[in-house]
Amino acid sequence: MSLRQDWDSGNDTLGVWLSNASSVSAEAAARAGFDYVCIDMQHGAIDYSSMVGMVQAIELGGGVPIARVPWNEPGIIGKTLDAGSHGVVVPMVNTREQAESVIRSCRYAPAGSRSWGPVMPNMRHADNRTWAHEYIACIPMIETVEAISNLDDILSVPGIDAIYVGPADLSISLGLEPGNQDGDPLFDDALAAIVAGCRRHGVVPGIHATGALTPKRLEQGFRMVTVTADLLAMTIGLASELATARGATSGTSDRMY
Amino acid sequence: MSLRQDWDSGNDTLGVWLSNASSVSAEAAARAGFDYVCIDMQHGAIDYSSMVGMVQAIELGGGVPIARVPWNEPGIIGKTLDAGSHGVVVPMVNTREQAESVIRSCRYAPAGSRSWGPVMPNMRHADNRTWAHEYIACIPMIETVEAISNLDDILSVPGIDAIYVGPADLSISLGLEPGNQDGDPLFDDALAAIVAGCRRHGVVPGIHATGALTPKRLEQGFRMVTVTADLLAMTIGLASELATARGATSGTSDRMY
Amino acid sequence: MSLRQDWDSGNDTLGVWLSNASSVSAEAAARAGFDYVCIDMQHGAIDYSSMVGMVQAIELGGGVPIARVPWNEPGIIGKTLDAGSHGVVVPMVNTREQAESVIRSCRYAPAGSRSWGPVMPNMRHADNRTWAHEYIACIPMIETVEAISNLDDILSVPGIDAIYVGPADLSISLGLEPGNQDGDPLFDDALAAIVAGCRRHGVVPGIHATGALTPKRLEQGFRMVTVTADLLAMTIGLASELATARGATSGTSDRMY
Amino acid sequence: MSLRQDWDSGNDTLGVWLSNASSVSAEAAARAGFDYVCIDMQHGAIDYSSMVGMVQAIELGGGVPIARVPWNEPGIIGKTLDAGSHGVVVPMVNTREQAESVIRSCRYAPAGSRSWGPVMPNMRHADNRTWAHEYIACIPMIETVEAISNLDDILSVPGIDAIYVGPADLSISLGLEPGNQDGDPLFDDALAAIVAGCRRHGVVPGIHATGALTPKRLEQGFRMVTVTADLLAMTIGLASELATARGATSGTSDRMY
Amino acid sequence: MSLRQDWDSGNDTLGVWLSNASSVSAEAAARAGFDYVCIDMQHGAIDYSSMVGMVQAIELGGGVPIARVPWNEPGIIGKTLDAGSHGVVVPMVNTREQAESVIRSCRYAPAGSRSWGPVMPNMRHADNRTWAHEYIACIPMIETVEAISNLDDILSVPGIDAIYVGPADLSISLGLEPGNQDGDPLFDDALAAIVAGCRRHGVVPGIHATGALTPKRLEQGFRMVTVTADLLAMTIGLASELATARGATSGTSDRMY
Amino acid sequence: MSLRQDWDSGNDTLGVWLSNASSVSAEAAARAGFDYVCIDMQHGAIDYSSMVGMVQAIELGGGVPIARVPWNEPGIIGKTLDAGSHGVVVPMVNTREQAESVIRSCRYAPAGSRSWGPVMPNMRHADNRTWAHEYIACIPMIETVEAISNLDDILSVPGIDAIYVGPADLSISLGLEPGNQDGDPLFDDALAAIVAGCRRHGVVPGIHATGALTPKRLEQGFRMVTVTADLLAMTIGLASELATARGATSGTSDRMY
Repeated sequence: MSLRQDWDSGNDTLGVWLSNASSVSAEAAARAGFDYVCIDMQHGAIDYSSMVGMVQAIELGGGVPIARVPWNEPGIIGKTLDAGSHGVVVPMVNTREQAESVIRSCRYAPAGSRSWGPVMPNMRHADNRTWAHEYIACIPMIETVEAISNLDDILSVPGIDAIYVGPADLSISLGLEPGNQDGDPLFDDALAAIVAGCRRHGVVPGIHATGALTPKRLEQGFRMVTVTADLLAMTIGLASELATARGATSGTSDRMY
Repeated sequence: MSLRQDWDSGNDTLGVWLSNASSVSAEAAARAGFDYVCIDMQHGAIDYSSMVGMVQAIELGGGVPIARVPWNEPGIIGKTLDAGSHGVVVPMVNTREQAESVIRSCRYAPAGSRSWGPVMPNMRHADNRTWAHEYIACIPMIETVEAISNLDDILSVPGIDAIYVGPADLSISLGLEPGNQDGDPLFDDALAAIVAGCRRHGVVPGIHATGALTPKRLEQGFRMVTVTADLLAMTIGLASELATARGATSGTSDRMY
Repeated sequence: MSLRQDWDSGNDTLGVWLSNASSVSAEAAARAGFDYVCIDMQHGAIDYSSMVGMVQAIELGGGVPIARVPWNEPGIIGKTLDAGSHGVVVPMVNTREQAESVIRSCRYAPAGSRSWGPVMPNMRHADNRTWAHEYIACIPMIETVEAISNLDDILSVPGIDAIYVGPADLSISLGLEPGNQDGDPLFDDALAAIVAGCRRHGVVPGIHATGALTPKRLEQGFRMVTVTADLLAMTIGLASELATARGATSGTSDRMY
Repeated sequence: MSLRQDWDSGNDTLGVWLSNASSVSAEAAARAGFDYVCIDMQHGAIDYSSMVGMVQAIELGGGVPIARVPWNEPGIIGKTLDAGSHGVVVPMVNTREQAESVIRSCRYAPAGSRSWGPVMPNMRHADNRTWAHEYIACIPMIETVEAISNLDDILSVPGIDAIYVGPADLSISLGLEPGNQDGDPLFDDALAAIVAGCRRHGVVPGIHATGALTPKRLEQGFRMVTVTADLLAMTIGLASELATARGATSGTSDRMY
Repeated sequence: MSLRQDWDSGNDTLGVWLSNASSVSAEAAARAGFDYVCIDMQHGAIDYSSMVGMVQAIELGGGVPIARVPWNEPGIIGKTLDAGSHGVVVPMVNTREQAESVIRSCRYAPAGSRSWGPVMPNMRHADNRTWAHEYIACIPMIETVEAISNLDDILSVPGIDAIYVGPADLSISLGLEPGNQDGDPLFDDALAAIVAGCRRHGVVPGIHATGALTPKRLEQGFRMVTVTADLLAMTIGLASELATARGATSGTSDRMY
Repeated sequence: MSLRQDWDSGNDTLGVWLSNASSVSAEAAARAGFDYVCIDMQHGAIDYSSMVGMVQAIELGGGVPIARVPWNEPGIIGKTLDAGSHGVVVPMVNTREQAESVIRSCRYAPAGSRSWGPVMPNMRHADNRTWAHEYIACIPMIETVEAISNLDDILSVPGIDAIYVGPADLSISLGLEPGNQDGDPLFDDALAAIVAGCRRHGVVPGIHATGALTPKRLEQGFRMVTVTADLLAMTIGLASELATARGATSGTSDRMY
């Protein structure tokens, strides 16, 4: 099932973020049971040269591969989709004009002006034009005060399937520290405004979260919630295992770790 | 502090295993606080082409980089050390002759016949011959019935700093299922025999474990205990975060994950 | 002989397209006898990190390496030329302003504003400024209705050596299915208009084709015709060999392939 | 279906060889309909660093990935299987002792002494020990006069599923030019002897061939026949398309290609 | 010590340029004693896929890693800083608007609009927002007649720490041959004007030089002077060693090298 | 001209060593005018995955590519030659049996048992069997006391074209510090014995040297002398340029570098 089918069926979706350029950890993450696996080429240590193999690994692992591009630029959006990504997350979309540019880059004419040449999807789908039309998710990011002030202008651009909130950038833009600033009215109101706007326009609201925050975000109405990330999960797992290992070592070793 | 200094000071050491060919996750793992970080070129999805950068990343992260080679072969042992590894774990050493070959590959003459050309250590250490002599840890693996039957022959080879037990291979060799077969007398007796042998010969006993098993292994006398691994920790972390995320979703979504 | 010398001598040129990031298949393709070998960084599964070695392989194989960039962006055009490409194909040039930007990116001052630093050509040519001036081919793509409506504005920009038609994008822009729509007057007229425009302005008309279509395209006046591509040729070759192999297997095997 | 299941069901199998280190062409080849796809790490321009991703690509493409190792060496055979290969082709097996070494490297105890740590199969199969036991194909190569003189000694080693003939090496060993020397009694008799030996011992005979030779090889009794290879098919395809393109150019161009 | 601390302390800084995508030569260069090591992604044969490891290598070697981006584009500037670069050199900044764009890309709000997600710095610095604010150097390039004519407009943009002159591009823009055109009044006056402008605005003037030119550039007032580069130094070293080697060979060999 | 032609014509040959896995610096080194360029896979930070492209780069640069393998192992020797190397340097050949193994790995039957499959030479040479027979240089290393004591046994093995002395390993084996120990009679006598032995058997004596040592080595009778290496030359060049830059800075800066 694709993300768009999931959303059309009324399902909420939980995802995982990849920051490490590895088709090995990508396959492992794809097998972990998330509804989407996002290759982060903006802040992750990944670029196009790694993503072709990572999309293969995610597809093999039964995941739905999407990708975040470094910037709202037609060249990399086209390459990302030609590599077989089922969707594209585009950072820092603050105006209607920028949102229209996202759609132009993502959709074939007449809806947009994406150039034809789907080198990897060609191997996988019988009718790529239809597949792209029905499956590829266009997901601009809403993460600044400016974007919120242009919310209806942005969300009313035809062809936007979902938007995605970057809480750290949103917080900075609001004059707060980067992070999830739940409890601060500026932050809480911004999230509420975004969800409300999405409902007005039939757009799926998405957001970056943590495992612990996910239930709250779903209650707030977000339907595309990223739960964790590859390097973050590894770091959590390493720390947890090391703490377990050390727990009982105090009696047998005088080493202070 | 090097592993050998640690051991000479009477410290137990806890380590982490790397199976993913990435200098990014290697730096993250090196910063997690383990006493050694082992690049696994035997069963990990890693070979020499990745390890040069991984050693750099581990050194940058303040970790002690060692490596497991695919097999007891002088070429790859030499390349591993020339890449700057502080030690080498060599699988399936079952006889005294094989142990002597490990030492020949690891040590410069007259102790062995390692070839001179430490391309990466040359950048980092003022006197590489002394550094190699005093710091590099030679660590054959003891993981079969045959090796245990030759234990004193192996452990008495001059130049062995530690040995390392692979519990899965040991179990298979004992006719058990691969894994930690604690409670099975065959397995328990084998571990006890290895630790006892190491004590007789002044060799550090090491073993692959888990966070939960580590305290027991330390109590059993193992002094080099691998707690977890990169991909394993990531998988544990992903599953844990996803479970947390789903815990409260039951009320807001009818989706069966 | 360079492409521009070929064209100046009145020769038609037949080329091959590369979509696979490999210096091995690039050398093989370069030795196959085509007049140019184009590294496709737009729709091919290739980016800059692979193209440096591919240019070396093509030069070694005696081919003329050119490249298609992902988009009309000065950074990647500069890197492509600094990697030693003899020419650059730039997608989706629809206006005179966009064509002028191509020239600015491709030519040193005063003709343009390319930045100096030809790291790879420096190794190969004695006088790089002259070499670049006389050899590098600037090849904007004409592949939309908008571009055809601006044809004279585009073709009259000084410094354009050739243009290149992407038939799939042209067809989509014309409201047709992606592909070669020969026989459809919209498509046929568009090609004729482009060739006629090129003749008016002394610009070489180029187009993406197939082996079978090439003779017709040459008759239509195209002088830079891409005959096939690496992955496509491999797929054709595999299918052909497998069919040959199976042809006589029917009697000796009841397997339905 | 695995190769061994294919063979056990009485099916002949046709395969393709990969010499290019690319997960892109590997996926394309896997989708071409062959019964196995062999990653050639001996003569192909491929080593372990590329094969992990190539196995992923072949699995994604629905192919059965096997691999040829550079030499009969336990380290690389283990790494190849840990990367998820369904079988391993081992060159230059000339004696029973060498054949026994192949089996030791390929099989877990008690059948052999492969070390446990299936990093990639772990992601894909629920019970890896059973999967390995039932699916992995051990395929020594018979390609010298010496091997033929030891044929029964080799083929009677327990655990050999198939053997594979390298016709070029066989010809050289016979004192002929490298290649398929059909018609030369030395060569014909050698193939016949190998097929007869395989039938005596219940081992599947395999051989490297071409599309045109495949029907004959199947008639001779070979049941694992490699039809073509990635680079070879590309070269054939390029030459064929270029010839088609040039066929009709003679009238429109005075260029002698 | 960071570059900005160096400059604030009144120190002149001498640097080295890297054009080769290698973490091995990067570590060697970092250990050579320069005040900064610049990874050149514009004219060097390097892109993002290599720079993550190169930054690790430079940090390990005790150097200060900065990077030149291919163009003034927010996506790559963000990725460069997220990879852990301590500064960014941005080519061809000719107007105040372009300089403001550099600052927007380099600085977090409210000074700019860099997006939050410092994947590699996160591992290394406790407070990344403060670290970025105090350490990261924004360095636009001044290298055209147009830029000089807009000098005060550019240099007065808040947040510029230094500017960097590319002498080859400056010369071309002045109508001269690419290179250091010392003695030509056009060139000399341009350098003098840039240094004077920098002093008016409290901006550090930087320039690309050679070992021999460095003393003069320091006397002219430049405070960030690049002395040489990896490939250039290698070429110089190779030629010098070969000349030494050949010097005495004339008597023992009749070979004309 | 090939190395063997050079030697047959009575020419001495001067070479360069590569330790960095880069096709960019390889091309630059190949253009520097040496008679051979050796890719060092033993002590260099290079393995097979990089050498295919490096051989292409060296061929493009007009150099003669040879390679040192990590160990005397048939698999890697075969891969090195299949990658297009014109010769192979094999470390630590101490006995006649080991020397015979080198020849078996390097030569096709009947002279040896190299397996047929020259994937890269196939693209470059019309008759690969003849080319290999006449051009490929087999070069065992003589670098221990044991080897010298077996000198005539080794040098009389048919098919050895040259031998190569590693002075550091030779010194260690002689009980000296690693390096060129000219003046120590043990070292001097060893070199003299090797040259004398080579003359008895018509084998070319080679040795690792420096620019300054080369004339002496040629006088001593060595005819294959490696003058310098990529990383070494870079380090020399960087230090020299930095010293030049600093030389005149003392008056203008109080900074102690």
